[in-house]
Amino acid sequence: MSDLADTAISPLAPAEFPVLPTVAGVRIATAGTGMKYQGRDDVLLAEMAPGTKVAGVFTKSRAASAPVDWCRKSLKGGGGEAQALIVNAGNANAFTGQCGADAVLSTVEAVAENVACRPSRVFAASTGVIGEDLPAHMIVDALAGMMADLHGGDWESAAKAIMTTDTFAKGAGYSVRIGDQTVNIAGIAKGSGMIAPDMATLLSFVFTDACIPADILQDILDDAVAQSFNCITVDSDTSTSDTLMLFATGAAGEHTAITSADDPALTDFRAVLNATCQELAHLVVRDGEGASKFITVKMAGAESDDAARRIALSIANSPLVKTAIAGEDANWGRIVMAVGKAGEKADRDSLKITIGGVAVAENGRAVEGYDEMPVSAHMKGDAVDIDVDVGVGDGTATVWTCDLTHGYIEINADYRS
Amino acid sequence: MSDLADTAISPLAPAEFPVLPTVAGVRIATAGTGMKYQGRDDVLLAEMAPGTKVAGVFTKSRAASAPVDWCRKSLKGGGGEAQALIVNAGNANAFTGQCGADAVLSTVEAVAENVACRPSRVFAASTGVIGEDLPAHMIVDALAGMMADLHGGDWESAAKAIMTTDTFAKGAGYSVRIGDQTVNIAGIAKGSGMIAPDMATLLSFVFTDACIPADILQDILDDAVAQSFNCITVDSDTSTSDTLMLFATGAAGEHTAITSADDPALTDFRAVLNATCQELAHLVVRDGEGASKFITVKMAGAESDDAARRIALSIANSPLVKTAIAGEDANWGRIVMAVGKAGEKADRDSLKITIGGVAVAENGRAVEGYDEMPVSAHMKGDAVDIDVDVGVGDGTATVWTCDLTHGYIEINADYRS
Repeated sequence: MSDLADTAISPLAPAEFPVLPTVAGVRIATAGTGMKYQGRDDVLLAEMAPGTKVAGVFTKSRAASAPVDWCRKSLKGGGGEAQALIVNAGNANAFTGQCGADAVLSTVEAVAENVACRPSRVFAASTGVIGEDLPAHMIVDALAGMMADLHGGDWESAAKAIMTTDTFAKGAGYSVRIGDQTVNIAGIAKGSGMIAPDMATLLSFVFTDACIPADILQDILDDAVAQSFNCITVDSDTSTSDTLMLFATGAAGEHTAITSADDPALTDFRAVLNATCQELAHLVVRDGEGASKFITVKMAGAESDDAARRIALSIANSPLVKTAIAGEDANWGRIVMAVGKAGEKADRDSLKITIGGVAVAENGRAVEGYDEMPVSAHMKGDAVDIDVDVGVGDGTATVWTCDLTHGYIEINADYRS
Repeated sequence: MSDLADTAISPLAPAEFPVLPTVAGVRIATAGTGMKYQGRDDVLLAEMAPGTKVAGVFTKSRAASAPVDWCRKSLKGGGGEAQALIVNAGNANAFTGQCGADAVLSTVEAVAENVACRPSRVFAASTGVIGEDLPAHMIVDALAGMMADLHGGDWESAAKAIMTTDTFAKGAGYSVRIGDQTVNIAGIAKGSGMIAPDMATLLSFVFTDACIPADILQDILDDAVAQSFNCITVDSDTSTSDTLMLFATGAAGEHTAITSADDPALTDFRAVLNATCQELAHLVVRDGEGASKFITVKMAGAESDDAARRIALSIANSPLVKTAIAGEDANWGRIVMAVGKAGEKADRDSLKITIGGVAVAENGRAVEGYDEMPVSAHMKGDAVDIDVDVGVGDGTATVWTCDLTHGYIEINADYRS
């Protein structure tokens, strides 16, 4: 039953993988271990120049995976430096007890030996099935081949090697200036289910050759996540393994020294980093399991931005809203329902809902002489825009999600078997 | 596409509607207005003896329907007495602005005139599509016929008249003693989607001929709801219209005067009321849109009972857990994920998960030599039992839900059209 689901590419996928810049100081390689998937690469190794700075954001799950535990510890104790990243797909190494921690340790130690650095400068991520022991030796055995194959920039292969239920490889990146120096940003991501704010089964790795101190790198990453990965949801589920890391090699060539996150020299860089993260996050939504519509929920008039985000997520996570959109049904009553259940302040009698730019409800009821035709036409497209004003304040937020279709059931009722 | 879904009875439905006792002091009648449904009754009128006491619990939605507003006001200002209940199915009279309030008023005024009481003693509920004006005159026009038809106890017809996407009529009730006096309890419910704690699209009306003061009635209803309707979820969505009311006519005949909710004379009555509410709540889950499995999640070892309930609901609401169960896949990793995302204290390394009585995971990993066979066999049945101990305290909770199937998508992607 899942044959189709396993092979069909999301109808919301972009036409092709984008051309991403080469990032000086980063070399990558991929390999196939056969651990779970056959006939494809399932391990990614990235080697970074000595002195590379690193920042990371991880799942808030109370049952975080062994590699997440490791990365958190290394990020804290390792002085904010990184020299390698090792990622595998097919086994999440989550809920694997001491075995899981041992598997991470033996993997990163082997990588550290190969790239000649301390183990705490090796970061690791795993994605796939939860609860099965990770056969670390299969990754270790693949290292020598990958070391020999390290090269400067086949980002598409890197993005492919970390896919699980993803139907297409995800990448985004640009060049931008810091002062007079051109620097490069290239990022990859994977994830299509268990996607909810707070970084659900999502792995994303963004590399830049800018020279930015680790603490500043963390600040600008936190800010980028708040506007991108933490504003998407597919099914409200949160993974044990979410990992977003930003590596800055400093190898682009000398530029203005960066002394704070607010440094005016960083303005363009941050804008481009934010755009890169937002593109990657959108690609994850576009590959949402079973997705047939890309939905943008814009919220205004809430008590605060946080309240706006919570109401927007209540709409974006509502199975009834998502199935109505799948059915191309302009059933805005379900949006009212989702606003109501969010638990945030909202004025029922001044609530305004717009779909595809057409006002459907205002002042606590359907608009006078409401014509469903243009709204229905909008809903037949593959991008659906919902704007809601809850009429109590100035808080705004934008959240992205996809619809809930038979495809989601097909993929998830028969994923592991 | 939804023809099948519209007519097929849930595979989890009981064989037949139960025999419910007659409740002295309550007369009911039903009628068909043709407002939305054709060829079936869609309005229920219940007339209660003067002096009937009433208690109610309503949706926590910030966009509550017009009849919910009315009931809240009447419950507060009406001295806790009721003499009639009018319910319609097919139109929720929610998000209908002043028109909606006017429609309730004209309906209850007409009912009040018919049963000869103050309007504030008439309670009203509506369920169905949100955002369409309620043609109150169609209900009013049906009143004379229903007044002529009032009778003592066709509960099945009453339960049928309030159905929307329900596939079977839902009732529960028993006789019990207060002191030496036999009293009767009969309840009906409707609801199959938009079901989440805090009373999602659920209407339930429970009648008894016991004599219980209004404030005590409210206390025992609150307690019953906490153990029943607030422990079920179908799709995590919360309706604008949830209404649970308990009416006590006092017409059974004289019994020990009840002076507090803790009155020992009430012990048996409360146990039976709780059982009635729990049965009604379970019936709603059994009619969960597209449901093929009845799932019981028992949580132990949480920091508090509230924390246990939140973790249990995180499991019960997880689309990934629900689809795995639909696929009869013993994918307990998704249960770990759902525990992790609940945000409550849990000790990953002493987490224990049992499915169908078989331990599948403990001490932070799969059990040694785990044999999936008996668990897979359990999951092929139509009742799935999940027990989780999060290993940090004494908090416990039980929550009931159903799986997430193609049927849910079929029903909800094409409901209103």
